[in-house]
Amino acid sequence: MAVNLPSPNPSELHSIRGLRIGVTEAGIRKANRKDLTVVLIDEGASVSGVFTQNRFCAAPVQICREHIASPSGIRAMLINTGNANAGTGEDGRARALRTCTALAGKLNLAPNQVLPFSTGVIMETLPVDRIEAGLDGALADAREDNWLRAAEGIMTTDTIAKAFGAQVMIGDTRVSITGISKGAGMIRPNMATMLGFLATDACISQALMHQLATELADGSFNRFTVDGDTSTNDSFVVIATNKAAHAPIESLDSPEGQALKLAMLEVARKLAQAIVRDGEGATKFIAIKVEGGKTKAECRQVAYAIAHSPLVKTAFFASDPNLGRILAAVGYAGIDDLDQSGIDLYLDEVHVAMKGGRNPLYREEDGQRVMKQSEITVCVVLGRGDAYDTIWTCDLSHDYVTINADYRS
Amino acid sequence: MAVNLPSPNPSELHSIRGLRIGVTEAGIRKANRKDLTVVLIDEGASVSGVFTQNRFCAAPVQICREHIASPSGIRAMLINTGNANAGTGEDGRARALRTCTALAGKLNLAPNQVLPFSTGVIMETLPVDRIEAGLDGALADAREDNWLRAAEGIMTTDTIAKAFGAQVMIGDTRVSITGISKGAGMIRPNMATMLGFLATDACISQALMHQLATELADGSFNRFTVDGDTSTNDSFVVIATNKAAHAPIESLDSPEGQALKLAMLEVARKLAQAIVRDGEGATKFIAIKVEGGKTKAECRQVAYAIAHSPLVKTAFFASDPNLGRILAAVGYAGIDDLDQSGIDLYLDEVHVAMKGGRNPLYREEDGQRVMKQSEITVCVVLGRGDAYDTIWTCDLSHDYVTINADYRS
Repeated sequence: MAVNLPSPNPSELHSIRGLRIGVTEAGIRKANRKDLTVVLIDEGASVSGVFTQNRFCAAPVQICREHIASPSGIRAMLINTGNANAGTGEDGRARALRTCTALAGKLNLAPNQVLPFSTGVIMETLPVDRIEAGLDGALADAREDNWLRAAEGIMTTDTIAKAFGAQVMIGDTRVSITGISKGAGMIRPNMATMLGFLATDACISQALMHQLATELADGSFNRFTVDGDTSTNDSFVVIATNKAAHAPIESLDSPEGQALKLAMLEVARKLAQAIVRDGEGATKFIAIKVEGGKTKAECRQVAYAIAHSPLVKTAFFASDPNLGRILAAVGYAGIDDLDQSGIDLYLDEVHVAMKGGRNPLYREEDGQRVMKQSEITVCVVLGRGDAYDTIWTCDLSHDYVTINADYRS
Repeated sequence: MAVNLPSPNPSELHSIRGLRIGVTEAGIRKANRKDLTVVLIDEGASVSGVFTQNRFCAAPVQICREHIASPSGIRAMLINTGNANAGTGEDGRARALRTCTALAGKLNLAPNQVLPFSTGVIMETLPVDRIEAGLDGALADAREDNWLRAAEGIMTTDTIAKAFGAQVMIGDTRVSITGISKGAGMIRPNMATMLGFLATDACISQALMHQLATELADGSFNRFTVDGDTSTNDSFVVIATNKAAHAPIESLDSPEGQALKLAMLEVARKLAQAIVRDGEGATKFIAIKVEGGKTKAECRQVAYAIAHSPLVKTAFFASDPNLGRILAAVGYAGIDDLDQSGIDLYLDEVHVAMKGGRNPLYREEDGQRVMKQSEITVCVVLGRGDAYDTIWTCDLSHDYVTINADYRS
């Protein structure tokens, strides 16, 4: 059961002019399951993406990077579930390219105008024949108002489809933003495949797209993925179809650029948080805020140490205010000159630890009350500077073990 | 159930001349439980220790460091379970010192001749009164042949007592070595409290003791604890009572020094591996060997990335050869210039991955066969140098979650 995550609201999933989506059942790993999605993008769109830093990045990620860097212009995306095409060596690259070539042939495009995405089991051979055989069905399904099916089509261990949208005025023009995401392996989210796709009909130059994608990722998907500590397949792609009537946005710092970016960030953040809320076995959504650091980077480092601690995560699962486990994680986060006597800890508004020791006024029942909630904010104050940062995580439950022990069964 | 870990063999637990141990039930957290242990050391012993790198190190660890550094000579150790006295600030330090003072008073020693150790729940107030009240009972129990009770007296979530011993000839003199350990929070062992105590009646100068303790830890307890990523209370103490008849060992590189060190290392390694075998919820003992690295440090870094991955650990629990998860962990271990096409993976003798992709000869049933064993060796070949290293870990099971969700209940 996802934590406080409703099903997508269809009225929010705006069609994006210039972008059509088709979904089919290609039988890639299992029968009777939507597992192949095509996204068709009209000529003239601006496209960029942010990809995993994992040195064992999957074949499709390698190819996405190359194709986005080419000047041909991205015109289609091809997303399969059931197989990650990661840890597959040169053969995996060749297979990913063959799927691009197959889709490009049907659309009269060059192969490097297609971005491939795969998610599922690692180190198994991509069944290119099934993907090729599924393309006609996916293309026949393609239409602008197909976002909900797309959100369903990219799910793996997700328990619920993830799709959000928004509209915003750019000058006198109303533009639409719609996105989908998937991913659920959440004890260390960086090890699951996360996919996020965010599209708008707004007009924004290709030159700005990489900056936009990076800034959006930094405020959303990168809040629960550490650089260099990400899965083989994580991908976040942003598309502007440039179909809206307003003048193209030339700077993200302009009023129009700011308005668009903030609206897109809001959707991206919902998409990212949805992955945490649907974390494998998650029963709680936990925001970890670290304040009073010397740098934002060290705040994030401490926050991730807490978020990754299985002892902390099982304590949240048990609603047990065994909060010394949080202090222990702060202590081993790798800040060599950290002075424990400067550290305070809050659980929501409850002041648990003060100057590195138990707050004399702290009562266990207050901690217990907060721990029982489904949404909790942990705040650590380092007491050595003005920097702060926040990340999101979930708890570690029996269901996490069940899901991951049985994933391939 | 610990993995292939028998109960201590009493005939192996040699008395160490000059060292007596007493254990009692002091009711520190729960009644009817051995929870307080004193170790009395005759004058003239050589003592050193290795302690956690956690910046939130517990009060007793801080005090152990200071007392070991003082020239007074360590004469006693005081070990309690049920309370870690960590995350307790200045008050925690004062309380740990009070217990040293109390024991010193009864033995006519200076307080800084006593080493305190605490293990249990973090961030709760140490009940000094109960410890003080228990001292007479512990002292009344003190005798040389009490190692088994000591091993029982320091257990927390351990399912089995951990004690090993050996004898070795130094010249014409037979010397004895006996040790005990505890610790069981094992998904990231660094976050549990591990205690290890190793004693010998051999003669070795105090000047050599720190080197000896460090080298023994490096070959045993530090094989499953990363620097800077350790619990608040981890401690490993080595004691030489200097009672044996041989001439004092002046160098670890001498034949006598080598012989003693190797024999002690063997016992230390068994004590450390016992903690992994009794890892919370563990069903498998896994050695992770990384070869072909540029440096030993990078081999260890990769090994720990694998060992810490919950996805890898749940796959081992499920006996599921979902081995791409291991490659993914290699990829995010943080080696920036790692070339995935140089990497091979073995499971015992089964060659799973070759040059970053699936070995064409690999058959799933071979991987499955190895995964079903209770002892497994994972070998990753990085293909970029001659360095290698090995660490030990266990799997992640339902029982891990149960134990850690219920620990304080």
